[in-house]
Amino acid sequence: MLTKLPTSSYEKRIKQVQEHLTKNETSGLFVFNPYNIYYMTGLFHFPTERPIALFVPQNGNSILFVPVMELEEARRETIFQDIRHYFEYPGTIDPIDWMIHEVQQEYNNWHRVSMDGGSQQLFNQLSDRFIKVDVTVDTIVHHLRLTKDEQEVELLKNAAMYSDYIIQVGMEIAKPGITELELLQEMSNRTLEKMVKELVEIIYVPGGPVGGLVPSGVRTAMPHALPSAKKLQKGETQILSCGANVGGYRVECERTCFIGDVSKEQEKAFQVMATAQQMAIEAMRPGMSCAQVDAVALDYIKKEGYGEYLLHRTGHGKGLEEHEAPWIDEGDSTILTPGMVLSSEPGIYIEGFSGFRHSDTIVVTEGEPLVLTKFPKSIDKLVI
Amino acid sequence: MLTKLPTSSYEKRIKQVQEHLTKNETSGLFVFNPYNIYYMTGLFHFPTERPIALFVPQNGNSILFVPVMELEEARRETIFQDIRHYFEYPGTIDPIDWMIHEVQQEYNNWHRVSMDGGSQQLFNQLSDRFIKVDVTVDTIVHHLRLTKDEQEVELLKNAAMYSDYIIQVGMEIAKPGITELELLQEMSNRTLEKMVKELVEIIYVPGGPVGGLVPSGVRTAMPHALPSAKKLQKGETQILSCGANVGGYRVECERTCFIGDVSKEQEKAFQVMATAQQMAIEAMRPGMSCAQVDAVALDYIKKEGYGEYLLHRTGHGKGLEEHEAPWIDEGDSTILTPGMVLSSEPGIYIEGFSGFRHSDTIVVTEGEPLVLTKFPKSIDKLVI
Repeated sequence: MLTKLPTSSYEKRIKQVQEHLTKNETSGLFVFNPYNIYYMTGLFHFPTERPIALFVPQNGNSILFVPVMELEEARRETIFQDIRHYFEYPGTIDPIDWMIHEVQQEYNNWHRVSMDGGSQQLFNQLSDRFIKVDVTVDTIVHHLRLTKDEQEVELLKNAAMYSDYIIQVGMEIAKPGITELELLQEMSNRTLEKMVKELVEIIYVPGGPVGGLVPSGVRTAMPHALPSAKKLQKGETQILSCGANVGGYRVECERTCFIGDVSKEQEKAFQVMATAQQMAIEAMRPGMSCAQVDAVALDYIKKEGYGEYLLHRTGHGKGLEEHEAPWIDEGDSTILTPGMVLSSEPGIYIEGFSGFRHSDTIVVTEGEPLVLTKFPKSIDKLVI
Repeated sequence: MLTKLPTSSYEKRIKQVQEHLTKNETSGLFVFNPYNIYYMTGLFHFPTERPIALFVPQNGNSILFVPVMELEEARRETIFQDIRHYFEYPGTIDPIDWMIHEVQQEYNNWHRVSMDGGSQQLFNQLSDRFIKVDVTVDTIVHHLRLTKDEQEVELLKNAAMYSDYIIQVGMEIAKPGITELELLQEMSNRTLEKMVKELVEIIYVPGGPVGGLVPSGVRTAMPHALPSAKKLQKGETQILSCGANVGGYRVECERTCFIGDVSKEQEKAFQVMATAQQMAIEAMRPGMSCAQVDAVALDYIKKEGYGEYLLHRTGHGKGLEEHEAPWIDEGDSTILTPGMVLSSEPGIYIEGFSGFRHSDTIVVTEGEPLVLTKFPKSIDKLVI
């Protein structure tokens, strides 16, 4: 099973960025955004006050800058020959100033220097040190991340398998009397055990390799209700909102279930949500805009009389981050192209009563949308 | 048991910021940094692409801006009367532009507007919309967070209790044959169960309410080794590096233990680390600089011949974040004052052999340093 990208993926990405820099007459790019560093290098890190940066010159070898405590891992995980380290933050010399000094020693004839991610303070530091050089913000890495190649889709397929599995475990162990916290712990533990057994390597990412949210009853009406000591009860709606990560790539699978009986009110709202969710999936085809897909789902929900219970857009991109561009939202005019990976998850939230949301992770292809998550979603399969 | 701050804490903080704005002739401050929003409002959120901001005017009522899905929680968790919401990101109107428009409708006579945290892009948006108004970055909230008051220390004391408890559980269940992953899961589960029983409310924060790292054997030589499927073995060093969070405030407690036998080499390095760690604690008194405290511990380790095995500074501030200012590092000249909360955790890392690190969380007081974490740390108490 593919559990991480081959080194050729990183070589390709570096080359793509360098071609972009050449085209834009930019001398080099500092990558600061942690997910973009992972995308370009394979080195995952939890961002802290200790800065990590990748410098990609228009021509020549990239330089990876890390604190000494990340040095061994950087050597092990990346393709780079030139990894330079500093001792600590803040240090007697500011680490960013040191990085700038290092690249200025290495390269000259600066025309334009760009940064990826980073704060106003970082921008000022670059502007102060690159005298008479144009300093800009460049979004090339975010742009490359918008579409996934075959190997990335392979990792996502594997992540989808565990996303389905954790929902299956949840269906098996959810029962009246168990708390949300216990339910989620047991679901996560069992799925993690399976992942540890089957995967060669597990990459620790924010949120962990597998997990989610499991609101029950009235708490399902809050889209992001965190696990609580509330006990599951017969007759309540139970949302299992989960995801897993393989090789840095995240997939989500969410299902709205019912503990025992389903009332007419629950069933009606469920069917409207489920139809809208499927309509959005069907609309995820090349040439459609994100805003159009969003409208397909939300307009249907409004037409069915549930418009006042909408609290969010239809979906968002999936990849390295839990949420990433493009956004299946009225404000995003991005045209879908093959290789984009999206969630479809319109929700209905009736305060004091219940919420309803399924989510799948879908790859846009030349033909039919490829739904990676395969857990059943009809109401008869979702009664616990 | 105190599990969250009273509303008076937030009222006091708003007042402190307003006094600062008056003194600095600043018309208002946009707070964007998620931890600073929590500090000022009590509203915790996982930062996503959907911006949340607090606007504090020099005079008058603050305005909290949230996406609609956070509205209920914002009403429940904060003291603010004026909470305004937008539907989604990106939306047809940029949420930041909308926030700026809202405050411009509410207040006039702008002299200077400041932002807290935020990217280069946010700075540009403010500059573009506030024509002929000075736009600056302000660090007042970070400054206020440097020293903790009585109630914050109370929360930290409670978090320290659970930080000690998880180490105790680890000592009880660690044994040859168990994997690091199993060990950490069981430690976290048991401690979380205790917290759920005893605390009225658990605030979900990045990293969770309780957890940590549990490297064993040669993996202890990597300061941030994530839990793996490696099995614990007799004769190995075992680091239990844990922490807990109560009411948003984090404490860490770390202990270097041994599975069964302790070799002379292990004992020697352990004693040097333990002595340095205690020396740094003793030095955490008003009037000392962070750099001086750092030197006390690291110079001792160097003098004892372990200088080449240092991979990081002596410690850092503790509070809302896992790591926060001030930094117990040669590059931080901050003078310690009562109410600062710090970790003391110099480490020795001998690649291919073993690492050694204790950490405690300490409050600087007018008198003796107040060590919040109380788990035993002499070698005879740390053999499993």
